Amino acid sequence: MDYIKIPMDIEKKSFEIIGSEMGESKFSEEELLIVKRVIHTTADFEYKDLIYIREGSIEKAKELLKKGITIYTDTNMALSGINKKALDKLGCKVVCYVNKEETHEMAKEKGITRSMAAVETALEEGVEFFVFGNAPTALFKLKELTEEGKGNPAFIIGAPVGFVGASESKVEIEKLQLPMITVRGRKGGSTVAAAIVNALLYMLIER
Amino acid sequence: MDYIKIPMDIEKKSFEIIGSEMGESKFSEEELLIVKRVIHTTADFEYKDLIYIREGSIEKAKELLKKGITIYTDTNMALSGINKKALDKLGCKVVCYVNKEETHEMAKEKGITRSMAAVETALEEGVEFFVFGNAPTALFKLKELTEEGKGNPAFIIGAPVGFVGASESKVEIEKLQLPMITVRGRKGGSTVAAAIVNALLYMLIER
Repeated sequence: MDYIKIPMDIEKKSFEIIGSEMGESKFSEEELLIVKRVIHTTADFEYKDLIYIREGSIEKAKELLKKGITIYTDTNMALSGINKKALDKLGCKVVCYVNKEETHEMAKEKGITRSMAAVETALEEGVEFFVFGNAPTALFKLKELTEEGKGNPAFIIGAPVGFVGASESKVEIEKLQLPMITVRGRKGGSTVAAAIVNALLYMLIER
Repeated sequence: MDYIKIPMDIEKKSFEIIGSEMGESKFSEEELLIVKRVIHTTADFEYKDLIYIREGSIEKAKELLKKGITIYTDTNMALSGINKKALDKLGCKVVCYVNKEETHEMAKEKGITRSMAAVETALEEGVEFFVFGNAPTALFKLKELTEEGKGNPAFIIGAPVGFVGASESKVEIEKLQLPMITVRGRKGGSTVAAAIVNALLYMLIER
């Protein structure tokens, strides 16, 4: 059978198709890299109407990534989807605390979800870059704790998916006056969150 | 803030919303568990028109899972998304060979993708249960090798996402007369593939 076998060729061709089918858009060139990568990951063009990129947020994310920071993810799936070679090149690392023993204990003790407990731990450790693809409760928690002055998030990707709280969690997090990229409405997910991180990473490195 | 914090309650409520918004469907009760879980994972109701469940496939998948088999996944992301506690209860395990040293070497040597090399290795090892959420090339390869008699897949989940080859790969794999669940068209992905596996696992265990 005759089919393209080179991953980078497949990606290039995919992005061309996405660009031609998307047509006109309001996005800048860098914003488009994010939007197209999400569509590439989902084959769902609706994302072009759901992705919200706050002004100056791409610059802030790049500034943080260039420092070689730690990235919080709410699930191991989002963690898996982030390109490790790209992270290595920038000296960044990614953590997910959701299955840690301490997280289980804190969640049980406080009667909160493990994702919420994981956010508390990350803020205590000074993590600044937060990625959510799954857990609305974790986004609510991040907003609460930030408003209480318990932590200093500097950039947020808010992309929980779902029917209970997901949409609301993104409305809430947008009330924080911080650099962020969100996926509005019910859609989102770990692959979407990881795609946004990868799009940012690929702005900074040669692949 | 007042919001649901118990994961199982969130899931139950989500499935209720999905059921009420989906309306009538052609699916059996067990098929619906799969379709609803995919919609729960993506917030995308289009999946109810894209998921193809071949007759007898759910029974076959359950029979295999009850034996405590090895599940092949094409990406670490799909692997991450599969419920490990559920796998443990059934004595099943999940493998992803895409980052193994041998896979890199075979791919380089043969000029194929790592996903394709990973399929070869899995078939050689006698793996019967295949899950694809990402790599069309791997699905093509599975079809080729199966037709050449080099391996005995017994159940396939074909859910690659994308614009180059994904849709075609699912048309091709359906030509194999084997139990399978596919997501037709461009849509799919690691989260979708993992959701289908989890739906099958949850038919067999108490959660």
